[in-house]
Amino acid sequence: MCTFASYSASSSSSPPPHQESSPRPSPFMSPTTTIGAKGRAEAPAQAQFQPLLPVQSPVPSDIAIAQSITPQHISKIAEQLGLKADEYDLYGTTKAKVKLSTRDRLKDSPMGKYVVVAGITPTPLGEGKSTTTMGLCQALGAYLKRKVVACVRQPSQGPTFGIKGGAAGGGYSQAFPMEDFNLHLTGDIHAITAANNLLAAAIDVRMFHEAAQKDEALFNRLCPADKEGKRKFAPVMLRRLEKLGIHKTDPSDLTPEEVRRFARLDIDPTSVTWKRVLDINDRFLRKITTGQGPEERGQTHETGFDIAVASEIMAVLALSSDLADMRARLGRMVIGNNKAGEPLTADDLGVGGALTVLMKDTIEPTLMQTLEQTPVLVHAGPFANIAHGNSSIVADQIGLKLVGQDGVVVTEAGFGADIGLEKFMNIKCRASGLKPDCAVIVATVRALKMHGGGPPVVAGTPLHHDYTNENVELVKKGCCNLERHIKNTTRYGVPVVVAINQFASDTQAELEAVKQAALESGAAAAAVCNHHGLGGAGATDLGQAVLEACSKPSSFQFLYDVQLPIKAKIETIAREMYHAAGVEYLPEAEAQIERYTRMGFDKLPICMAKTQYSFSHDAAQKGAPSGFVLPIRDVRASVGAGFVFPLVGSMMTMPGLPTRPAFYDIDVDLETGKITGLS
Amino acid sequence: MCTFASYSASSSSSPPPHQESSPRPSPFMSPTTTIGAKGRAEAPAQAQFQPLLPVQSPVPSDIAIAQSITPQHISKIAEQLGLKADEYDLYGTTKAKVKLSTRDRLKDSPMGKYVVVAGITPTPLGEGKSTTTMGLCQALGAYLKRKVVACVRQPSQGPTFGIKGGAAGGGYSQAFPMEDFNLHLTGDIHAITAANNLLAAAIDVRMFHEAAQKDEALFNRLCPADKEGKRKFAPVMLRRLEKLGIHKTDPSDLTPEEVRRFARLDIDPTSVTWKRVLDINDRFLRKITTGQGPEERGQTHETGFDIAVASEIMAVLALSSDLADMRARLGRMVIGNNKAGEPLTADDLGVGGALTVLMKDTIEPTLMQTLEQTPVLVHAGPFANIAHGNSSIVADQIGLKLVGQDGVVVTEAGFGADIGLEKFMNIKCRASGLKPDCAVIVATVRALKMHGGGPPVVAGTPLHHDYTNENVELVKKGCCNLERHIKNTTRYGVPVVVAINQFASDTQAELEAVKQAALESGAAAAAVCNHHGLGGAGATDLGQAVLEACSKPSSFQFLYDVQLPIKAKIETIAREMYHAAGVEYLPEAEAQIERYTRMGFDKLPICMAKTQYSFSHDAAQKGAPSGFVLPIRDVRASVGAGFVFPLVGSMMTMPGLPTRPAFYDIDVDLETGKITGLS
Repeated sequence: MCTFASYSASSSSSPPPHQESSPRPSPFMSPTTTIGAKGRAEAPAQAQFQPLLPVQSPVPSDIAIAQSITPQHISKIAEQLGLKADEYDLYGTTKAKVKLSTRDRLKDSPMGKYVVVAGITPTPLGEGKSTTTMGLCQALGAYLKRKVVACVRQPSQGPTFGIKGGAAGGGYSQAFPMEDFNLHLTGDIHAITAANNLLAAAIDVRMFHEAAQKDEALFNRLCPADKEGKRKFAPVMLRRLEKLGIHKTDPSDLTPEEVRRFARLDIDPTSVTWKRVLDINDRFLRKITTGQGPEERGQTHETGFDIAVASEIMAVLALSSDLADMRARLGRMVIGNNKAGEPLTADDLGVGGALTVLMKDTIEPTLMQTLEQTPVLVHAGPFANIAHGNSSIVADQIGLKLVGQDGVVVTEAGFGADIGLEKFMNIKCRASGLKPDCAVIVATVRALKMHGGGPPVVAGTPLHHDYTNENVELVKKGCCNLERHIKNTTRYGVPVVVAINQFASDTQAELEAVKQAALESGAAAAAVCNHHGLGGAGATDLGQAVLEACSKPSSFQFLYDVQLPIKAKIETIAREMYHAAGVEYLPEAEAQIERYTRMGFDKLPICMAKTQYSFSHDAAQKGAPSGFVLPIRDVRASVGAGFVFPLVGSMMTMPGLPTRPAFYDIDVDLETGKITGLS
Repeated sequence: MCTFASYSASSSSSPPPHQESSPRPSPFMSPTTTIGAKGRAEAPAQAQFQPLLPVQSPVPSDIAIAQSITPQHISKIAEQLGLKADEYDLYGTTKAKVKLSTRDRLKDSPMGKYVVVAGITPTPLGEGKSTTTMGLCQALGAYLKRKVVACVRQPSQGPTFGIKGGAAGGGYSQAFPMEDFNLHLTGDIHAITAANNLLAAAIDVRMFHEAAQKDEALFNRLCPADKEGKRKFAPVMLRRLEKLGIHKTDPSDLTPEEVRRFARLDIDPTSVTWKRVLDINDRFLRKITTGQGPEERGQTHETGFDIAVASEIMAVLALSSDLADMRARLGRMVIGNNKAGEPLTADDLGVGGALTVLMKDTIEPTLMQTLEQTPVLVHAGPFANIAHGNSSIVADQIGLKLVGQDGVVVTEAGFGADIGLEKFMNIKCRASGLKPDCAVIVATVRALKMHGGGPPVVAGTPLHHDYTNENVELVKKGCCNLERHIKNTTRYGVPVVVAINQFASDTQAELEAVKQAALESGAAAAAVCNHHGLGGAGATDLGQAVLEACSKPSSFQFLYDVQLPIKAKIETIAREMYHAAGVEYLPEAEAQIERYTRMGFDKLPICMAKTQYSFSHDAAQKGAPSGFVLPIRDVRASVGAGFVFPLVGSMMTMPGLPTRPAFYDIDVDLETGKITGLS
């Protein structure tokens, strides 16, 4: 059992849900070492790889490095990856959207190895999971000469301008150009925002118009007569009719009762769970009242905004297999229920098709490159705490086909393995049918010291000297966190490789302690990496360990049977992954579970909304806590995405800005046109 | 004096601010005629031009036409226009962003003729201004063999899913593919939304943090000490220091009084005029209360959302000459004032640079094409009623350089000439220094009948038979509206050509009446056009008339001296353009004018926010009303955009959705992947 540091977030600048920034070590110029499964330190394996990048010490800022290297034209990257000219659309010279026709063309080709990168429970500074993903791919591609694709998530612009800065990796392991990666990209999150908010507007305005009109007037407006007095149903209306069991195609044939049932959604305003979103850290939108204008006739609603990447539509994007699947999922998203307690969908509101049209281009992943010109597919969004937080199924599938039999796809799961990886295994792999060949768990000495009882690590304030001076005991105590993540992950039947993301202040004894703990906990291998300081050359050991792990037999299995009742699934995750002693449901959660079960939404997997800072619901509980009772405050059904979404404790779904947001440093150099201050 | 029809908008589906959809005439297969300045009907001039497009009768739906024609790869369009390969970035195969370096390269080249397209006071169905712009360019380019560029505005997605449908023109005169044109385009409006709302979040959170912290704590957070205990100012902070007259660069040198003045913005919450925006018709966001969450500690704000294209940032985009100018304008946008009454800017909040970074790519216009493969530059946004509503200065400049001496740029001004064209002349041309060679005013028999006293024209309901049967008297009476627009426009010293956008039900006698009235009112020429049914072949007479008008000498002049006081400028527009008898200022407007004058913002041009449906403030006053008193309800200063913004009567800045929004018809054909139901 570990010592737990007491940790509390600054109340005046609530921490963003996403805190996966890369650490900023100086390069550790001595060659890194690997420890094999037998636990003996091997000779430095890496001396043979000289960095191909012009690395400097100390490591310059991320943006300075990114801007000092000229990216390849993205069509070259596409060509080297095996894409045909009509299989991608350029978005400038450094981004391209890859068409799903690629996957169709390669449907009979063998797939590469499938590697998922997760992490230990992070500090608010992040442990370099994205950096490790990039470094590993640079190692595999540029040094170990494997065909490789990194599949990562598009960052939210909220934290970019808030506390975190960008999310493209760091040091000499980055997806770049970072300004393209971090800002707008190819517009997927903007499309999600537009679609999410169109649905929100449709809900409110439907209640408004229904309140003002009798059944027939409502029906006449929904199915207006044309010049010849003929009415017809829009195709989306046929979906609602089918759901209602009305098998008629001519509006004139409906009975008055059918007219009423069709036209009047009768939305229960207290049941509406659909919120608006923005990709901005705007805490003043967390809780608002809308409809206060005189034209809205007193129909006010208490509601709020979430950060856009937490939208169910982001999860739909991540989990859709193609456009038809996306259309179906968007149409069946449940926004609440009618006064009789029946669920109401986007298609009931007539907007499922329009949402798909808004989202049409987002189904295509965006191709970018690392600093060492290996391909990166950017798709879907972050925040594995308040959302699903995994990159998309289609990006992984396209990548696996493109790299082929000897190649590797490295896909990133958000935050600690208790949330991001658990969702990867039980939601994403269940939806895709893909099975990972290896899981990489990223650990840092810094985070393990915190888990061992080190003082709080707070973004924006200097680190305590415990973190900058050797303290092997603290590291050893904190390894309980790593141990649990490894054991949890091996339960899925997948070999685990631990990537120790090395910082300049880490000592050999500290690194050794981590390696020993990793191997004793069942990891197939553990590799110290310095890809931040050296690029791919600093992660070739990790690359070799991953290749070796991938060659081992694996026996993938889910954690739970999706047919179990909602509570049984929640309790399995709580017990097996978090080591909770029990689960406590607040009345609202009980009521929703009962409601969703009645509606038939109980056969979906579970997407826990839980803090990333602890195995438990309490961010202050570091290490490997157990014996706690997990509180389920509320439960949502994301029927379109395809999961049930329990809210564990008080999870903030809209971050705030601190007193000095990151935007203070961000500007354009008007001489060169280059962006400054992004990190 | 005309008869005025009484007109009232449906209260349950408030009309969108933007209603410029193209009419849907069948092609008028007889050759069209032109009347020269002497008023004699000339022989059909157009028989020589056979349509190059495979035109059908009746005219299919806009999307059916657009999807039946294969667009050229946009790089071909770019090449034909004279763009070099490194002067544009592809966004897929049908869109490209054009770099400002093009303008720099051609800085010594001669410019083409500059034609602005405006309209008479429209019906809610729109009179086909965008369609005429496309048809005119197709005529000039594909038939009259001039190098031509159409400069149009990116449509708002709000009306696309609301009442209006798309805005790419119509029939055989379109910018296409219409799904690209109408949805997302290259992300400019999304960037505006992101920037606008980042500023809004920055305002609220600054008030929040200032309320919680004393001067020194605030300063310490804004300028934190690094590891060596050294502080420094971010570059954007130096702008604030300069404004405050504090000429110091080391934070440690500031006196406590200077610390207070620098760190404490002391925002007066009642003065904040900056609202949030979404590109959605979401009436429930018109008036809201924010900050109701417990963490916001009771700091609630009454505020609201506008439609995104009404953001000041859209006007900044439209009026900026380059990135440096955009940076300066974004930084000096005024969001309200401090409790001492001094204006506060985006740069005071430290966010001007970040806004520029978000907006960086938007400075480049998007190249598309018409159905007859002439180039179109899409840039900036619509809504000349509640916004500036003109396409951008840089697009016009790039176009004028690219077409060269014998070429033509046709740029579109929103809505009727009383608002869109007036702003084009007095705001846009003042900022750009460009002078138009010709103004085209688009008129329809339908709208003129309405102005002559015809019954209300309401979107979504069948037209009264007055509009489908001949009624020459009604047309003649309504020509008072056209007459006034022509006379208003000739005041600017620019020749006027009237484009009569012909509908299938228009009779020869009705068209004749319009032509006569146009020429008697001082138009240089009037041409009946059927570009909707025939493409450019239907607008060659108009093209020839425009070329002839452009060859005449013009003597461009502004309507008012920008150095006049605010009220004098407002009153000049009210008297000379609207024919108001006087102007009445509500107390709030008086107070703001006084405040802005004191702050030194009185030397800016005026951007009236007025209904598009009448010369007056009252949409029901059709024809050419006079003698009314114009009510100024409030006044805003858009200091970054560079204009003062009086609100005339009650202008809605966020549209609503009707009972049956356009989104009901919009879907994806899952077989073909094509979009259906856009119009």
